[in-house]
Amino acid sequence: MNFKVTILGSSSASPTINRFQTAHAINIHERFFLIDCGEGAQTQMIRNNINFARINHIFITHLHGDHIFGLYGLLSTLSLYNRTHELHIYGFSMLEYILNDFLKYFGNEFKYEIIFHAVNVRQNKVIYEDKNITVETIPLKHRVPCCGYLFKEKVPKLNIRKEMIERYKLSLSEITQIKEGCDLICEDGSIIPNEKLAYRPYIPRSYAFCSDTKYSKKIADIVKNVDLLYHEATFASESLKMAKQTGHSTTVQAAETAKQAKVKKLIIGHFSSRYKDLSQLLNEARNVFPETYLAKENDVYEIKQERFKG
Amino acid sequence: MNFKVTILGSSSASPTINRFQTAHAINIHERFFLIDCGEGAQTQMIRNNINFARINHIFITHLHGDHIFGLYGLLSTLSLYNRTHELHIYGFSMLEYILNDFLKYFGNEFKYEIIFHAVNVRQNKVIYEDKNITVETIPLKHRVPCCGYLFKEKVPKLNIRKEMIERYKLSLSEITQIKEGCDLICEDGSIIPNEKLAYRPYIPRSYAFCSDTKYSKKIADIVKNVDLLYHEATFASESLKMAKQTGHSTTVQAAETAKQAKVKKLIIGHFSSRYKDLSQLLNEARNVFPETYLAKENDVYEIKQERFKG
Repeated sequence: MNFKVTILGSSSASPTINRFQTAHAINIHERFFLIDCGEGAQTQMIRNNINFARINHIFITHLHGDHIFGLYGLLSTLSLYNRTHELHIYGFSMLEYILNDFLKYFGNEFKYEIIFHAVNVRQNKVIYEDKNITVETIPLKHRVPCCGYLFKEKVPKLNIRKEMIERYKLSLSEITQIKEGCDLICEDGSIIPNEKLAYRPYIPRSYAFCSDTKYSKKIADIVKNVDLLYHEATFASESLKMAKQTGHSTTVQAAETAKQAKVKKLIIGHFSSRYKDLSQLLNEARNVFPETYLAKENDVYEIKQERFKG
Repeated sequence: MNFKVTILGSSSASPTINRFQTAHAINIHERFFLIDCGEGAQTQMIRNNINFARINHIFITHLHGDHIFGLYGLLSTLSLYNRTHELHIYGFSMLEYILNDFLKYFGNEFKYEIIFHAVNVRQNKVIYEDKNITVETIPLKHRVPCCGYLFKEKVPKLNIRKEMIERYKLSLSEITQIKEGCDLICEDGSIIPNEKLAYRPYIPRSYAFCSDTKYSKKIADIVKNVDLLYHEATFASESLKMAKQTGHSTTVQAAETAKQAKVKKLIIGHFSSRYKDLSQLLNEARNVFPETYLAKENDVYEIKQERFKG
């Protein structure tokens, strides 16, 4: 069961010769999601063999052009591909007006409906749920209303330990109850605890996306222990003042959040176009949080399933 | 004195793995112009070392997304680069509303003014002029109001033949008059014709851009004898019916226009994403008009200056 993040763009406000603007595509159990949609996101998805006709949910962090100007082309191409099924877009309330203005000029031939979901960017709240995952907002601190998104796999259903069926001659109804978490009460009145009879097949995985934001202590509380954290690091640590002024983070600040939150892995991105060579940025972050990686176009981060121990 | 066309995108409605959407950048005497602005045009200009801060005039053929969705990012990046001087945009009247809606959401921090010029797409008319060139509209036949643009170098001023200054002991005022086209009247009453005394330093060059359009006989009349014609060829000739239905041209139709107009060179482009290999398209067009070339991202067509003969 997949849990894969594909980096479509790693640049900040202006693109560079080889860096596109922000967009991440996520495949969880063969359901596809998009976070942010910078210019060129559709081309990047084509390059990465991501069938964007299968994306049904797009999450937008904030309404700066470098995070949404790819929407126009993507939505139009979906229409060209004869899409008829609904597309859900989540974001700050003003996005609805932007989309409506877009549709007014370019949506005449669309045969699919765009369903807009306004999110409260100041609240940490589940805004999407399906049988496998939940998506929560992460309040961020930027120059305009902005939130990140936390994708969490749900705790998987219990699997029965096959040898126990035989040992305790379990009936179908007993198996169903055990799968729901019940202990087994034997005929002699003894109790077999559920964990001896069943197990969770894997540990739920999680991915948090935080762009764009000043350093904020509160982020670490929400992204605590995630497997993979993407956190913007627009500037090197020497540009702390510039970062504060523009509502962004430095490498060290991104790494501090990862460290405080005890995440497994950190990806930094949203690099200012002033940095041709990103090694300084990587080194600075790794000094604080060694498991740091640079967001790079077309890189895929797969979070592997792990079994519960014991 | 430059006259260069850089192909930024050769794809039609949907981009492909290696084809961007329509945009051509033009450098005439170190003045930069942009025709159409498909998604990714700014990235393509960065790749081609085109300093888009120097573009002051953008010409839009029509209001389909694949020809304008790159405007949003480009206009925003120009603001980020602290542009303060005016930018002129030419296009069908509705573009003004689209731009105003864009500025309403994203233009708050712009320090430069966008001056919009509505063009009459049904008329062949000079809509721009500076000391070196004129730009004319070319009425096209598409599903929505659409025109091409014809860039023509002006006839250059006369240069005096240096040896004549000596031979006829020309005064400064005589030189000025000869440069304005006058003959020389000698003291003995004899007349030296102007062409013996002066010459045009080069033949004016021209470039015509025709996308998107059905085949139209009238186009050839307007683009007669141009040095370089770009004409869309969305489809191979076998898809003539589809071309007609969608308001596009086939390879053969584009080549027919080039042949009728007796242009020097034809570039075909705006290829449907169905064509992975473009050699069929090229061959079909070359059968009708041998001097045909495929539009390819980052190709530069330079029209060299040529002297008048005699």
